[in-house]
Amino acid sequence: MRTPGAPIPPYGKPSIFEASVVRAPRDATMVAVTPLGAQQSAITPSGLFFTRNHAGVARIDPAAHRLLVHGLVKTPLVFTMADLMRLPSVTRTHFIECSGNGESLWQGGALASVSLSHGLASCAVWTGVPLRVVLEAVGAQRHAAWILAEGADGASYDRSFPLAKALDDALLVYGQNGEMLRPEQGFPLRLLLPGWEGNTNVKCLRRLELGAKPFGEREELHYAELLPGGMSREDDSVMQTKSIVTDPSVGDRLGAHGDYEVRGFAWSGSGAIARVEVTLDGGTTWSDASLEGPVLPKAFTRFTRPLRFDGTPLIVGSRATDETGVMQPTRKALLATRGVFSQWRYNAIAYWPIAASGAVTNAPA
Amino acid sequence: MRTPGAPIPPYGKPSIFEASVVRAPRDATMVAVTPLGAQQSAITPSGLFFTRNHAGVARIDPAAHRLLVHGLVKTPLVFTMADLMRLPSVTRTHFIECSGNGESLWQGGALASVSLSHGLASCAVWTGVPLRVVLEAVGAQRHAAWILAEGADGASYDRSFPLAKALDDALLVYGQNGEMLRPEQGFPLRLLLPGWEGNTNVKCLRRLELGAKPFGEREELHYAELLPGGMSREDDSVMQTKSIVTDPSVGDRLGAHGDYEVRGFAWSGSGAIARVEVTLDGGTTWSDASLEGPVLPKAFTRFTRPLRFDGTPLIVGSRATDETGVMQPTRKALLATRGVFSQWRYNAIAYWPIAASGAVTNAPA
Repeated sequence: MRTPGAPIPPYGKPSIFEASVVRAPRDATMVAVTPLGAQQSAITPSGLFFTRNHAGVARIDPAAHRLLVHGLVKTPLVFTMADLMRLPSVTRTHFIECSGNGESLWQGGALASVSLSHGLASCAVWTGVPLRVVLEAVGAQRHAAWILAEGADGASYDRSFPLAKALDDALLVYGQNGEMLRPEQGFPLRLLLPGWEGNTNVKCLRRLELGAKPFGEREELHYAELLPGGMSREDDSVMQTKSIVTDPSVGDRLGAHGDYEVRGFAWSGSGAIARVEVTLDGGTTWSDASLEGPVLPKAFTRFTRPLRFDGTPLIVGSRATDETGVMQPTRKALLATRGVFSQWRYNAIAYWPIAASGAVTNAPA
Repeated sequence: MRTPGAPIPPYGKPSIFEASVVRAPRDATMVAVTPLGAQQSAITPSGLFFTRNHAGVARIDPAAHRLLVHGLVKTPLVFTMADLMRLPSVTRTHFIECSGNGESLWQGGALASVSLSHGLASCAVWTGVPLRVVLEAVGAQRHAAWILAEGADGASYDRSFPLAKALDDALLVYGQNGEMLRPEQGFPLRLLLPGWEGNTNVKCLRRLELGAKPFGEREELHYAELLPGGMSREDDSVMQTKSIVTDPSVGDRLGAHGDYEVRGFAWSGSGAIARVEVTLDGGTTWSDASLEGPVLPKAFTRFTRPLRFDGTPLIVGSRATDETGVMQPTRKALLATRGVFSQWRYNAIAYWPIAASGAVTNAPA
């Protein structure tokens, strides 16, 4: 620069040279995926956090918003946002993943881009109140065992979940990455069930009803797993061990021979990532990647591994193991257990071939 | 909502109901402070990160940007951004604080707002390459001991620092909170000297020159400390132990009697925060606050403590101690050591009086 620069915007935006780094809408109001290939750390920028809505992006005035907690409780209560924000607060880093992330891969096909195959997952720093604090205020009755959560969006979207999860680590969050929740993530209040499939994390939360059993809401069946042999499984909502190499990924090109770095993210709904291994030969041999600390439970963990490219074709991939010992499965092992009829929670190992030219392509799932 | 919501923006923004949460410019192109009172977690949203420029916000095309590393080196090298982004990368959470944060408090006066008195500090997740990796590539000559860093902004802003800091934990960062650096933080490349005063973290970094001694650049003298007795001290750049209660803070009002929560941030340029204590009586008695983990070195640490307000006037404040054992000083102790002529690195304990009405006011420094 040979001249003075520009004024400071009150609320900053990315550089104009980064204009191509945006969420790709798969539908104008329903789905947009995170550009994971451009993500630089475990935290997804709030402007790029994936979004999946059932009735578009709601517009809720926080001053008028209320949360009703009722049903099998001793004292039903209505909370304003100001009430909730006075309660004891915590900050936690957690991923959210749509159970439909990579759903087209169940039936085969290739990874069109790392965004389209894996970009219905993001990670943020959330601030809010532990749900158990609110439940202590209303007092759960002895036979209460399930909770229905309902949103204030145009769909009155609802999902139910066990009281045990509520008392474990569920949060009512109003903060995302240091500011108030973004509208696409359910401003001004969202249910966060760490590690559970995205659709259970009800946005624009307006009502919690305690009951004795699952509420049989529409989405409970919609998100059931179709298993081999005509069976189905409901209410298994924990997102399983998964990882993906984001850099390099399909569409990239290694421009010259020399040293590069393989980078990606790993996560598990059951706890912290214990190990990530990287292969350069399509899964024949594996070596440990470095994990970027702090490694937090139910959060993205960034991993790296050196890569030397000399023109020999490579096939890059990663596999994660979480602290419970569960390793991300091969596609063959996944299909052997769960068949090909499910749409949900696909988590098989994925590979990116690198041609002699340096072009990074995609492989059949 | 009784109707469908809005389409999903490719790059999201905060809710329109959050329009008042912005950086306050103290000057159109030079200074804007973070609204710390609204910050929900240790991570400052990128759009709200404080900025202090010496020639406005630079506009740099990353494809044309180069970093020259020369001087007392074996092999001078020029790096493109693509070169740098291929090197081994790390992600680190660190605060940056302008050494002039709270400078008006040296001469007394009151805390006009928590943004104006403490908002020249922010914290982010940074991604980049350790500076030592770049120095290994060029090979420092044996008598190299200092490095001059120069920016590509209209001021060609420069600062020098010891080689020892470069080999310790200095980074060349291109990522901020998961995306590329924001223009106000020096897109596309910034020097990060963790824990050191903000002015040493040169933005839009284009040149590193290794030399045998300090370079005597203009800003080295500008940021020297004026001490009691007519002495001054140069090149003491570590930001010292500090904390501030952000909620409640001046301008807030506790609306009703009952339970609240004191929240704030603590940080130290020497390492991790070990302890934060909160007072409700202006410093007569103190009790431990809860620290929000993970507690990371040279990063903001969020703290909380319950507060019951029954109409009795209170005076709220916090004091931090870092892992080296250094406790944040009282104003009296600070002035006894460093006099009143400095503009830099004010870090005394601050208090917010709460009146019987619930109004939170400010106290003389």
